[in-house]
Parts: sequence; structure tokens; C-alpha cells
Amino acid sequence: MKKRRQEEDPDIMNIPAIADRTSLLPDGSIPDSVIKRLPRYFRCLRELYNRDVMKISSKELSEITGLGAPQLRQDLKYFGGLGQRGYGYNVKKLYTCISEFLGVGKKYTAVIIGAGNLGSALSNSRLFEQRGVWVKGVFDISDDVVGKTVADNTVKNVRELPDFCKKNKIDIAVLCVPANDGEELCGMISDLDVRGVWNFSPCELDRKKAGVPVVNICTADSLMMLMFEMSSGSKNENKA
Amino acid sequence: MKKRRQEEDPDIMNIPAIADRTSLLPDGSIPDSVIKRLPRYFRCLRELYNRDVMKISSKELSEITGLGAPQLRQDLKYFGGLGQRGYGYNVKKLYTCISEFLGVGKKYTAVIIGAGNLGSALSNSRLFEQRGVWVKGVFDISDDVVGKTVADNTVKNVRELPDFCKKNKIDIAVLCVPANDGEELCGMISDLDVRGVWNFSPCELDRKKAGVPVVNICTADSLMMLMFEMSSGSKNENKA
Repeated sequence: MKKRRQEEDPDIMNIPAIADRTSLLPDGSIPDSVIKRLPRYFRCLRELYNRDVMKISSKELSEITGLGAPQLRQDLKYFGGLGQRGYGYNVKKLYTCISEFLGVGKKYTAVIIGAGNLGSALSNSRLFEQRGVWVKGVFDISDDVVGKTVADNTVKNVRELPDFCKKNKIDIAVLCVPANDGEELCGMISDLDVRGVWNFSPCELDRKKAGVPVVNICTADSLMMLMFEMSSGSKNENKA
Repeated sequence: MKKRRQEEDPDIMNIPAIADRTSLLPDGSIPDSVIKRLPRYFRCLRELYNRDVMKISSKELSEITGLGAPQLRQDLKYFGGLGQRGYGYNVKKLYTCISEFLGVGKKYTAVIIGAGNLGSALSNSRLFEQRGVWVKGVFDISDDVVGKTVADNTVKNVRELPDFCKKNKIDIAVLCVPANDGEELCGMISDLDVRGVWNFSPCELDRKKAGVPVVNICTADSLMMLMFEMSSGSKNENKA
């Protein structure tokens, strides 16, 4: 048991068992703004749980997460009955609850499309493993790269992608291509029959056109936010 | 003039001149939630401006940005007087205004710390250039990497960092190191005398401890959001 709670283990191995999990889950009405903050709560609660912290006050959790205490209390109200005045939050229950809600325990398969610097960086990171995602293939269009080894995967030609995804029941396409043509990318995605897209390409993909959930990583936007904070001398808290 | 409006040019070259810019700027009271959406408006307005679109209705802009029209109208109210009923928004003015507010026209210098896959991917991308950021140095701790060339920069030893930053008046430290120790990283940052940190390391940095604005890139969080959307069948719009 001790071993399973070390940091090296994937998150999916690290969620405590609670007899009546489903009763802790909120109904489906959590606002998007709150949902976006849940991964941050998840990370902080995981750390607390790994350090064997049993309970925590909203003030302490506010300091750790960098989110204001009133907002935090409001957010966590959706996971009803876990905070008690004078006691604080039950770390184990809250952690289980948020993990469950976010679907952390589930397992997924993925392909990385584009084996350039970014694709290689992602392939080599432990990020997927930690989130229960098995990267089953890395693909590229360039003959210079096809056949090379990236994080134990031999890079395959993108021509093989549709067949590969079908055969291996791939859930997630991770787009690390430099392409700027969103329409073209959406077309490619629909051919792949995947269930979601994690998009690192420079063009934002439209979820409706892709036909599946898409999360666009707009790296440049966060650089702009940094510049804004630097130039405005903003006193804002850390931005995720 | 035509040349300056091509996509290849950096954003900072691409902001139209308006006689009375400052009168268009909002007072300092824009909520954080709205500020976070401004880069998205910026990107869409830039594209419209580059396509010589002069005006746009909130409905059309809502479709392009993927944000709801009521929210969009509410957000853009802070940039008062630019939208008119029956006319829509003046693309040029709104674009200038948001660029100005975000400080897009300013120029910055940066160092990339960590020349692994991610550091190399960032060094090689056109992202910095497009945002008016000059990457003046790439640094690493490993002797295997020091001396190699990454995007026209000879990788230097991190020991040289403090002197380099002082001598070159570096504004932004881009952290691409695998370090997990936030305290240590904050200590390093304070020694560097930079004005802001763009943090890609796995540990979230505390702005107060770093002493300067920090934007943490929590890549894993966005993967969790994708998983959540896939598992919940959420009908949410694209997430940034």
C-alpha cells in the first residue's frame, strides 16, 4: 500500500477506495468555470493525500492552490457535504470525488501525430503514463523522421494512421503538426475515428467541425498573458 | 503597407495606427476572467483585420471565437463605444484597442532555460518572434548539451545565467527544466533579476515566492480536461 502512494506511480493507481463513491458525485450542473479549476484542486489534493494529510481548512487549501478562499468554498460546494465548519475538508474524500468526477481512473490510448521537437518532447515525458494514457504510436509525414525511434516507438508514416487507429481502438489524437489549415486537420481527424483531440498545432480546431471533443493548446496566448501581467504590474494570483 | 499585413510578419508590426489610442483603452477594472479571453479575441480580430474585414456583428464574432454572443458582448463592453447596434464592431479599432491593452506592441528579451526536447521545440518555433520577444540565449545544466546549437543559439552553461541576464537586461525566463522543486526554482529566479517567468516545468511556481509575474503551463491539466469532456460527453464549446 505504501508503495502505491509514491509520486512515481500513475495517478490512476493512486486514488483511494471509498465504499460509496457515486453518492459523493455532484449532479451534472457544475459550471464550466469551476470545472476548469478542478485539475488544480486535483493536483493539490493528490499532494496532500500523498503526504498523509487527512483534513485541511479552506484557508490552507486556498494558500496551496493560489485561489481565493471564498471562490474555493464556492467551487467545492458542488461536491456537497465534504467541508464542515470548524473541521475543514476531508482530503481523501474530496480527492476521490474530484478524481472520479474528472474521470482520472479511466484508461485511454493515444497516437502522437508529428514527431518533431514538440512531438518528441511529449512522447518522452511521463505525462501520458501518469494520466493513464498509453501512447501506442508516433506518426510523421517526413521521410527523414519515419523509421526513427522516439520514446520506444518507431515513427510510422501518417498514411498508416487511419488503419492503425481503427485496429488499435485509439481514443486520443495528439496533434503536434505545424499545419496551419484547420479545415484540413478537421478532415483528417474525422477520418481517424478517434474520440478526442489534444491539439498543439498553431491553428485552433473547431469542436463542431472535428466532431469530437477538442482541447486546443494556445501556447502563444499564455505568453501574451505573461506580457500583460509584466506590463500592467498586475497583482493577480498565479494563472494556470 | 500591403506587405506589413501579411501573416508572416510579427504581430507587433501589424497593429494599425489610430490617432487617439489611449482614449479607447478601458479603465483598469476589467475582471480577470475577461482578461483571460482577450488573447482569443486578439487572434480572431487579427485574422479579420488581415483579411480586410472592416466590421463584424457580435453573432459573427461569436461564431469565429467559439464564445457565446451574450458573453462576448459583455466582455467587449469594457472596450466601450466600439460596438453599435445594427452596425457591429469596428474591427480595426477593437483590434488596436485589445492589442494596446495587452501590451502586444512592446518588445521583450528572453532566455530559455533547459535545452531538452521542449526547450528546443520552443527555441525553434516562431512564437517568440511573432510576439516581439527576442530569445537572446539558451541554457542547460548538462555537459552533453552545452556547446550545441539550438535555433542559432549556442547552448550555454546555466552557471553563466545570472551574469548573462544582467548584462543583456533579460525580461523573461522561459523554464523548460524537468526540476520538481518549486522552492529551488524560485530561488534561482530571484537570482536572475528577470521581470517575468513562463514556466513549463512540472512544478507550479508561486508568484509571491518568485517575486515576479509567473505564468505556469500546466499541460497535464488540459489533458485532464480533454479526458473529462470525452468521458462526460460534455457539449461544451472549444476550450482554450
